[in-house]
Amino acid sequence: MRFMARENPTVKFGNFEIGRIPRIVGTVHLKSELSQLPELVERDIVDILELRADRLHEEGREVVANSLTEMKQFQIPIIATIRKGEGYNFEEGERLELFRELIPEVDAIDIELTAEIRDEVIKIAKSHNKSVIISEHNLTETPPDDEIEKLLSESLSSGADITKIAAFANSAEDIARLMCFTLKHSREHPLVTILLGDLGTNSRIIAPLFGSCLSYGYIAEPVASGQMSVSSLHAELKKYLL
Amino acid sequence: MRFMARENPTVKFGNFEIGRIPRIVGTVHLKSELSQLPELVERDIVDILELRADRLHEEGREVVANSLTEMKQFQIPIIATIRKGEGYNFEEGERLELFRELIPEVDAIDIELTAEIRDEVIKIAKSHNKSVIISEHNLTETPPDDEIEKLLSESLSSGADITKIAAFANSAEDIARLMCFTLKHSREHPLVTILLGDLGTNSRIIAPLFGSCLSYGYIAEPVASGQMSVSSLHAELKKYLL
Repeated sequence: MRFMARENPTVKFGNFEIGRIPRIVGTVHLKSELSQLPELVERDIVDILELRADRLHEEGREVVANSLTEMKQFQIPIIATIRKGEGYNFEEGERLELFRELIPEVDAIDIELTAEIRDEVIKIAKSHNKSVIISEHNLTETPPDDEIEKLLSESLSSGADITKIAAFANSAEDIARLMCFTLKHSREHPLVTILLGDLGTNSRIIAPLFGSCLSYGYIAEPVASGQMSVSSLHAELKKYLL
Repeated sequence: MRFMARENPTVKFGNFEIGRIPRIVGTVHLKSELSQLPELVERDIVDILELRADRLHEEGREVVANSLTEMKQFQIPIIATIRKGEGYNFEEGERLELFRELIPEVDAIDIELTAEIRDEVIKIAKSHNKSVIISEHNLTETPPDDEIEKLLSESLSSGADITKIAAFANSAEDIARLMCFTLKHSREHPLVTILLGDLGTNSRIIAPLFGSCLSYGYIAEPVASGQMSVSSLHAELKKYLL
């Protein structure tokens, strides 16, 4: 563990410290994945669970609540994420209501930088003393450095505890640039960076070296292009956790 | 290949361009490795060969000349390296004589930044229109950024066509820092960067993403800690050579 420990700033999800060593987040987006959680938690493969309420809601609204109940029994931090335009097609008002319902029950929420309901969701999360991940996804390119800096500033001024930037990698240079952005800024602010697309797969492993504090993996099957399973992620990251 | 192509400055080893895409160097340090070269060259696994004259000389002085003759038949660039303190124990004068003998026969030489005979070797290489790699090895740590910058300046003012910096990785931060140094400076000067030690192994794969122009691998067995075989190197790097 010492090898990866950093002087970086930290955030707490409940009593769980994020920032000094990379943490693995297992994204739960199918009810069928719940049965795999006991083993993954027991073997310390996942540190945190992400409730992908947008995806789970496709299997029925009650699946969201039931999945959360099952996930809570593991007593590891839970992030609630309800994406717009992925999974169940929420109206913004309906999405806000679901956030309001989930926030008291989880440790952190993830909301898009560009979401209409962003400030409202953040206000509710803060009033419950829960951590806020503000995320930005660029599915076509990795923006120039100055644009990424602007996204970070906007996220920070909106109240992010953690800023998550996912950008599509079209070249090796894209990977290198976003990683160096991560090294530079993670010393000041908790950051998560991810390169999307096939070329970005290795960013799941190398971003933590550069200071990205969370690495997301799938339980049963990928949700995003380039994503790795939590088991592969754990095996690869372990090489650096001396 | 396009994925890795960069706008970086280039150097030529004979007619072979170095700098835009990463090239794999196979280090030949044992006579017994020569028999594996035909297949490795044929399958395009190695782009360049390094004659480790210091190591080969341990098997007899004639082994150096004979190995070079065998290596030249592949018509790929050859780098001559004669380290002090590794392999055969050369006197500096004797080492200079061997450089003088080898320079006309190879495409590039590698000389340590701190070598007593450095300027003399560079002068001979330049007079034969051969490329110069100036190398610096730190076997205990990765120096602070400002010290690495100084090493680079000193190497450039000494006449390096390519500056090679190998430093021991004690932490993830060391890897990240040297990689970001590489991204920044490889846009101006041809660079090779390597993290030594077990933790540094993945630098053999990721340094090219950050602009390191050569990645060294072994043919039969590792010469330096953290080194990979040319075959593994090729398989891993190929993932980025779209």
